[in-house]
Amino acid sequence: MSAQPGALRAQVWNGGGDFSLRTFPFPELGPGEAIASIDLATVCGSDRHTVGGRRAGAHPSILGHEAVGRLAEIHGGGLVDVRGEALEPGDRVVWGVTASCGTCDRCLRGLTAKCRQLLKTGHEALHSSWPISGGYATHIHLRRGLALVRVPDTVSDAAAAVAACAGATVVACLDAADAGSGTRGLAGLRVLVNGAGMLGLFAAAVANARGAAVVEVRDPSPERSELATRFGATRLAAIAPGGTRAGGTAGFDIVVELSGAPEGVRSCLTALDVGGCLVLAGSVSPGDVIALDPEAVVRGRHTVVGVHNYEPEHLQAAIDFLGSTAGTFDWGSVVARPLPLDALPGLLTGHESDPSILRRSVAPGLTMVESDLG
Amino acid sequence: MSAQPGALRAQVWNGGGDFSLRTFPFPELGPGEAIASIDLATVCGSDRHTVGGRRAGAHPSILGHEAVGRLAEIHGGGLVDVRGEALEPGDRVVWGVTASCGTCDRCLRGLTAKCRQLLKTGHEALHSSWPISGGYATHIHLRRGLALVRVPDTVSDAAAAVAACAGATVVACLDAADAGSGTRGLAGLRVLVNGAGMLGLFAAAVANARGAAVVEVRDPSPERSELATRFGATRLAAIAPGGTRAGGTAGFDIVVELSGAPEGVRSCLTALDVGGCLVLAGSVSPGDVIALDPEAVVRGRHTVVGVHNYEPEHLQAAIDFLGSTAGTFDWGSVVARPLPLDALPGLLTGHESDPSILRRSVAPGLTMVESDLG
Repeated sequence: MSAQPGALRAQVWNGGGDFSLRTFPFPELGPGEAIASIDLATVCGSDRHTVGGRRAGAHPSILGHEAVGRLAEIHGGGLVDVRGEALEPGDRVVWGVTASCGTCDRCLRGLTAKCRQLLKTGHEALHSSWPISGGYATHIHLRRGLALVRVPDTVSDAAAAVAACAGATVVACLDAADAGSGTRGLAGLRVLVNGAGMLGLFAAAVANARGAAVVEVRDPSPERSELATRFGATRLAAIAPGGTRAGGTAGFDIVVELSGAPEGVRSCLTALDVGGCLVLAGSVSPGDVIALDPEAVVRGRHTVVGVHNYEPEHLQAAIDFLGSTAGTFDWGSVVARPLPLDALPGLLTGHESDPSILRRSVAPGLTMVESDLG
Repeated sequence: MSAQPGALRAQVWNGGGDFSLRTFPFPELGPGEAIASIDLATVCGSDRHTVGGRRAGAHPSILGHEAVGRLAEIHGGGLVDVRGEALEPGDRVVWGVTASCGTCDRCLRGLTAKCRQLLKTGHEALHSSWPISGGYATHIHLRRGLALVRVPDTVSDAAAAVAACAGATVVACLDAADAGSGTRGLAGLRVLVNGAGMLGLFAAAVANARGAAVVEVRDPSPERSELATRFGATRLAAIAPGGTRAGGTAGFDIVVELSGAPEGVRSCLTALDVGGCLVLAGSVSPGDVIALDPEAVVRGRHTVVGVHNYEPEHLQAAIDFLGSTAGTFDWGSVVARPLPLDALPGLLTGHESDPSILRRSVAPGLTMVESDLG
């Protein structure tokens, strides 16, 4: 429905720290599919873990699952967003982390993130059925089954990209807590967020915007914790370097655990008040088991729920949140200035020394020269 | 609003195995309060645990929290049921296990079972503010804050009494699972019920009536398991005497753990399919902690939720279920023929040799002679 602009270039991850910048033909589009040109892709920590060997990943492949772009070409049959509204070339959109079949038992139950035919953005091998799946490229093939959400002009590229993984996951966490605790909305509730990375900041901001009475953020890094006060935290808890909590109080209605550290999970369990809900989202790597006291769960009327990825409505809600709070939170301040695709290998493997930077980013439209001039 | 009929007699528990049948003056009624004459009280296992010393209980007191009766006297200000409809003397009712204040933060959140001023039916001492709180008596003082539900004529005394604790608790479990798993209703889901006591049978029956595709019931006792096939179980799993599961399959959407045994809790955790919800309700005594793998919870999108007692709507739903399935399940077959109040101490302390009897019962209107003539 529009001319394919320019070449399709992507950083291909060959395994380990090996990358190659390659050019690809544009993919053939099927019904309900599109090509987007990518304006900005942020570097989620899980990609750094994949490249560093802490996570298995198919390769060669194009990584990147937090991005924002514009529709460049749409299959003739048309394309709709999560709300069912028609999309047109030129529309600014984000897309989900998971592409689902929509017909299996899990999809039909509303668990599309656990679809039996699941494909994941920025996780599929070049030799698979979805080679152009990643955000570290000039373009992405938006496969059928991906959630697509239109992004308002008031939402920055940095915020929109981060919403596609961190933001939507956090909305899924808070919605799960809402369902699990039997509450409707967070108004007046005491919320604890364990971990002040990008997910933690997003969780604090959403909890604050939804009217939580207390939003406590805990992180071993004082600098990270301090950041949280600019993103909705109403108070911080000092945590000793070993992860032992040195301050704060117990008695939370909702606890969102994002660190994945067994000690973090344990401390979160004991932080629950009667009727409270603990959402586990950080534990995505093998780790120690923790001790659960069934009687405490029963008498405390506790809920423990795991969240992994999210549903289409959570991506919509994350973007809606950013739109309705535009100007309130400075997401650009925690996302590094974008670099061209050429710089990606260094961003994925290098150490970030500035604790106030939670995401590095690439803007595939930049060239090294433009960036150098930047 | 009606004459107080006869004397108020009750079996008073004095601690240990010591009881005395005593006569009391009828209590003064406050606004929203009533006196009911008790037709039948079933003997919940927790009362046997209290008398046997496995549970602490205030005493002297009148035990009994599963009962059905008729309103004998209502305070002049009137009385309403859970649906807000006016009740009249003569109405047949059941009442909840908990009396709540309705004004504390927990009540306002819908957690009346965890009210900060909580009083419990059949648990309050004679020297407390609610001495006539138990079902092992000719009458009970229905205190303000108790849920009251009208019982249709088609529901037997045995079924109605059991609904007041076991039945309503099980409805709370299935509703929590429904919320936790993000499903709406149980249609097509695979449900596992661990434990074939009265709660297990009620859970199987409700799950079946709500359209579950599979209702598997597990119990170490073959006789108990067999009972479950008459109460909605679609299949049984053989369990070796030590509690080790010898058959059945994994992959359940909803698991209701009613045994309280740590091994039961462990096996239920591993029985969850992706997106599944485990409801813990049996773990009401101190027991071993169990190992929880946070990564499995996260990647499996599992929910673990504790249920202790229930909310007013669950009692209404339990009675509604019995009304809508009248004639389908023979609850009378698992409740022993009622005996007079005099027989209560033996029922609470003696061993029940018939595995098909899940509840003994007393009918305070019976005299020993009538019973003997049976």
